[in-house]
Amino acid sequence: MQNVPGFLWKLGQLNHVAIAVPDLEKARSFYQDVLGARVSKTVLLPEHGVYTVFVELGNTKLELLHPLGKNSPVTGFLQKNKVGGMHHICIEVDDIKAAMAHLKEKKIRILSEEPKIGAHGKLVIFLHPKDCNGVLVELEEA
Amino acid sequence: MQNVPGFLWKLGQLNHVAIAVPDLEKARSFYQDVLGARVSKTVLLPEHGVYTVFVELGNTKLELLHPLGKNSPVTGFLQKNKVGGMHHICIEVDDIKAAMAHLKEKKIRILSEEPKIGAHGKLVIFLHPKDCNGVLVELEEA
Repeated sequence: MQNVPGFLWKLGQLNHVAIAVPDLEKARSFYQDVLGARVSKTVLLPEHGVYTVFVELGNTKLELLHPLGKNSPVTGFLQKNKVGGMHHICIEVDDIKAAMAHLKEKKIRILSEEPKIGAHGKLVIFLHPKDCNGVLVELEEA
Repeated sequence: MQNVPGFLWKLGQLNHVAIAVPDLEKARSFYQDVLGARVSKTVLLPEHGVYTVFVELGNTKLELLHPLGKNSPVTGFLQKNKVGGMHHICIEVDDIKAAMAHLKEKKIRILSEEPKIGAHGKLVIFLHPKDCNGVLVELEEA
């Protein structure tokens, strides 16, 4: 998809849209019973501080996130957005280290010094929302 | 994708994620020059009150929205979210009238009595964010 000459890495597909929800069962029911989507069982990701339900949309998926334990990354978001809301988008890249070098050159702040292991067991980074038009952007090495 | 028995309509793919931005050129540059995505020229949609730039991600697209004229549907959003943010998600359906009947039965509020012609020239409805876990959901008849 990425066709700009001089890039040493390629942007890929939209991996998921993450939605933080105050009530996971209610959110699951909305996607399953109201919209008729195929949804997963609840997946516990204690190392990421979230319960997750995946909503399959064919070309990509939604990830419903609910806080698990203290220090969950979605607790603060839900305090500000009590009914829930869109939390981040995740786009795939082919080479996360090359992407990081390019982002640093472009003065885009990355929220960690090194990539972390994300919810899918792959390397991820998050970009500062203020440098991305108010959107928390996750890049995942596909 | 939608496999629930008894449904008279089918949910389809994620058509797009819409992102409202206060500075369209800056947002275009982020996706094109920083992330290396393929982006469209600016499209004026006066009947929808927005300037739009499409960001192609292969499996789906992002739509960058900026207010055009008075009464733009994104003006209020940008007053609350000054740096921009995720505005809505759009999911395809095969039969919008059947979807509407089902949504009414499930007590999900639809923001118009009838479907409207959306930005892609197709029939669309928007669902009340408070009934959708804080997310403004657009359904588009594909």
